[in-house]
Amino acid sequence: MTSVGATDTRFALAENQAWELAEEFGTPLYVLDESHLRSRARTWKAAWPHGDLSFASKANSTLAVLRIMASEGLSIDVASEGELRAALRAGVPAHQCRLHGNNKTWEEVSFAAAVGVGKAIVDNFQELELWQEANASLPLLLRLAPGVDPKTNAKISTGQADTKFGFPIADGQAMEALRLAIESGLNIVGFHCHVGSQLLDPGAQVQGGVQLAWFARAALNELGFVAEVINVGGGLGVRYTESDDPLPIPEYCKRLYAALSETLSDSLSPELAQEPGRSLVAESGVTLYRVGAVKKPALGDRYVVVDGGLSDNPRPALYGSRYEVRPIGVTGPGVPSRVSGKHCETDLLFTGLTLPEDLGPGHLLQVLCTGAYNSSMASQYNRYPRPATVLIRESGRADLVQARDDWESMFARERLPEDL
Amino acid sequence: MTSVGATDTRFALAENQAWELAEEFGTPLYVLDESHLRSRARTWKAAWPHGDLSFASKANSTLAVLRIMASEGLSIDVASEGELRAALRAGVPAHQCRLHGNNKTWEEVSFAAAVGVGKAIVDNFQELELWQEANASLPLLLRLAPGVDPKTNAKISTGQADTKFGFPIADGQAMEALRLAIESGLNIVGFHCHVGSQLLDPGAQVQGGVQLAWFARAALNELGFVAEVINVGGGLGVRYTESDDPLPIPEYCKRLYAALSETLSDSLSPELAQEPGRSLVAESGVTLYRVGAVKKPALGDRYVVVDGGLSDNPRPALYGSRYEVRPIGVTGPGVPSRVSGKHCETDLLFTGLTLPEDLGPGHLLQVLCTGAYNSSMASQYNRYPRPATVLIRESGRADLVQARDDWESMFARERLPEDL
Repeated sequence: MTSVGATDTRFALAENQAWELAEEFGTPLYVLDESHLRSRARTWKAAWPHGDLSFASKANSTLAVLRIMASEGLSIDVASEGELRAALRAGVPAHQCRLHGNNKTWEEVSFAAAVGVGKAIVDNFQELELWQEANASLPLLLRLAPGVDPKTNAKISTGQADTKFGFPIADGQAMEALRLAIESGLNIVGFHCHVGSQLLDPGAQVQGGVQLAWFARAALNELGFVAEVINVGGGLGVRYTESDDPLPIPEYCKRLYAALSETLSDSLSPELAQEPGRSLVAESGVTLYRVGAVKKPALGDRYVVVDGGLSDNPRPALYGSRYEVRPIGVTGPGVPSRVSGKHCETDLLFTGLTLPEDLGPGHLLQVLCTGAYNSSMASQYNRYPRPATVLIRESGRADLVQARDDWESMFARERLPEDL
Repeated sequence: MTSVGATDTRFALAENQAWELAEEFGTPLYVLDESHLRSRARTWKAAWPHGDLSFASKANSTLAVLRIMASEGLSIDVASEGELRAALRAGVPAHQCRLHGNNKTWEEVSFAAAVGVGKAIVDNFQELELWQEANASLPLLLRLAPGVDPKTNAKISTGQADTKFGFPIADGQAMEALRLAIESGLNIVGFHCHVGSQLLDPGAQVQGGVQLAWFARAALNELGFVAEVINVGGGLGVRYTESDDPLPIPEYCKRLYAALSETLSDSLSPELAQEPGRSLVAESGVTLYRVGAVKKPALGDRYVVVDGGLSDNPRPALYGSRYEVRPIGVTGPGVPSRVSGKHCETDLLFTGLTLPEDLGPGHLLQVLCTGAYNSSMASQYNRYPRPATVLIRESGRADLVQARDDWESMFARERLPEDL
C-alpha cells in the first residue's frame, strides 16, 4: 500500500444529476460514465506499451462497455461462448477477442474457431485435444499455474498451487503440455497466468510473471520453443473504500514491467500482455438506491433499507466486500447505520456507516465503485427485476444501455403443462 | 439432531433416467419430481391441521411448483410484486397469497391491494402508513422480532435481536405498532415471526412462537386485542448431506404445536400458521451436470470440473453449503475429489468428496437436494444461460417447465447508442 490519501479516482454523481436519473430511469439504477471509462482505458494504454491489453469482460459485459473498450484499442477477453457473443454483438471483430475458460466445451471451441477468434488460452490437457479436433490454426497460449498465493480473498485467488486453473509448472505438467501441443501441430505462441484479483500492489502479479519468464527460458532450452507472447493476467485492485489504496496504474505497470524484463533472457523478447478487468470499469460506475424503511432494532445500529439487495450486488454476501455509501439530498448529524436490502434473508449490504439522522423514505443513496461485478453477477432472486444501466455520455446525455427487466421477459421462460 | 441414519427422504434420479434427460434437455439441468413435491406437501398438510400452511415461494417460484403447491391446498407466501405476479400467472387466486417484505414499496402495496391479496404481513412503521394510504381492508399480521438467535448461518438468521425484520417486542415497538394500527382502523388479525432457516429441530421456532404467544396474551390484557392468527414462520431444514439430519416433519410439527398450545392462555385460540419453503421443495430436486476437464493440481485433491457453477448454485459460495454428489454411469475405486465450476474465479462447488477414479469428460454428476434456492437465485454471470427445469410428472413423462435461457433473450436488454 502507498500512503493513505492518494488521489481518489472514483466517479461520483452530482446530487442534481442523481435526482434526475432516479426520476427518469427509476431505482435501483447502475450508472456508468463514458468519459471516466475512456480515461481509465487511456491511462492503461499509456502505462502499458509492451503488448496486448485485454479487457476482462466478465467484470462488465454490457455491450456499450465492450464497444467503448474496443474503440480505445483494447482487445476483449471472453470466458464463455456468451461473452464472445456479447463482444461480437457489440461490433468487436472476432480477431480482437481472446477466449478463456477452465472447462471449455466442444461447442465453445468450435464456435470460437468458426468465427475466427484472435487467440485462445488453453487451460488443460482435455482442451488441447478439443483444439486438435477443431483443426484450429489460431494462436494459442498455455495457461500455467505458477503456484503463487496472491493474498486476496480465497474465492478470487486463482494462481495458487492448488488452483483449478492451468497446467502446473512445479510438477512438470506445463512442460509436458507444451511438448504435446508442439508435437500435435497446434499453433502455440506463448504462456499465460493469472494469480488473483483486487491486488493493491504488483507483488503477486510480478511473482506469477517471473515464473512465466523462467518457464519461457526453460522451454527455449529444453524444447527450443521461442515464446512470442507472455500474458501475465490482470488483478490490479480498485478503491472500494478509503482503506483500499491501490497503486496508481502507471506505477503498477512500471514495477511489473521492470521485474519481467529483468527476468527474461536476452534471447527472448516476447510481447508482454495484460488483462485488466475490475481496474478498467469498477470506479466508473455507481449504483443509485432509494431508501424505504428506516428502523431501529432492539439491538445494534439503525437499519436503512434500500430497494435493491444481493440480487444487484452479491459481493458483500459473497466476499464480505465493503463499499462507500453517500446520501443524496440530506445532510446533518450522522448516526451509526447499516444498509440492508429487500431480500428475504439478512441481506446486509453495507455496514459500519455513519449516515445523516434525517435520512428517510424517498431519499437516495449513491454507492461508489460498482461498475464491476455488479451488473454481470445480478440475479432475479425474489423475482426482482435486474436494474437498468445508464451511460452518461461525454456530451452529458444519459443513454439507457441495459434496460430494466420487465415482467413479460421475466416470465418468458416459464411453461405450465396443460394437465398440471 | 436425532440419530444418524434416519430415513433418507431425498429424490434421486435413476441412472438411465439421468442419461435420457441430459440427452434430451442438455446440462446443467434442474430436475424436479412431481410425486415427491406432492408427497412433501401432503406430509406437511397432515402434520399441521392447526391453520394456514403457506409455501415460501422464494425457495422456488417456478410457476409449475406454485401451481402444485396451491393445488395441494397450501397458500403462497410471496415476498415481492414479482413473486405475487408469479403466483397469479400460475393460476393461484390472489386471496390464496400472503404478501411479505421488509421494505414494501407503494407500488407493491397498492398492487397487492388492487388484486385482492389474501393477507399481508406488516414489517415496519412506514409500511403501516402505506396500508392506510391504500385504504386497504385486507387482514394484516404484524411481523414481530422476538429476539431469538436460531443458531444457523448468520446470513439466514432473521429473528435475532438485531434483525432488520419486524417490530421488536423487547423495547415496546411491537405494542406501540399494534396500538397505532388499531387506532388507524387497519384490519390487524394477528402476529408473525420467522427466526431463521435450515433448522434441524424446532427449538428456535418454538422460542419465537412462544414469544408471539406471550405477546398475544399481553395484547389482550393491555389493549383488549384478540389475536385470530399466530404465524410462526418457517425454517425446518433438509438433508443436504448425511450430516444434516432434520427432525421428520410430523415430529417437528408435533413438538412445535405442543409448545405453542401450552403457552396460549385459555382466552385465546388463534389459528396457528406456518410457512415452510425449503422443506417443501429442496429434497424434490436434483441438478445434473456434465463433467468436462478432470485435473490434478500441483497441490491438493483432484478437480472434477462441471459445466455449471455459482451461477446455477450460489449457495456454496454464499453460505459454505455442502451437498451430496453422485456420479452417473461410472463406478470403481474412488479418489479424493472436489468439484468446481466453469466460472472465472475459484468457483469451488463441492469439496471433501470421494469420486470414482475413472470419472472423466462426458460423464454425468447428480447433485441431490437442489430444489430450493438454486433456480430462484440463478444468475447469468459470465453470460451463461440459466439452466432449464424439467418436471418429472406422476406419469413418468418429463415436461419442460422453465426453458434454458437462449441467446436472444440474454441480449434483449442491451441497447447500443447509435453514436457510440
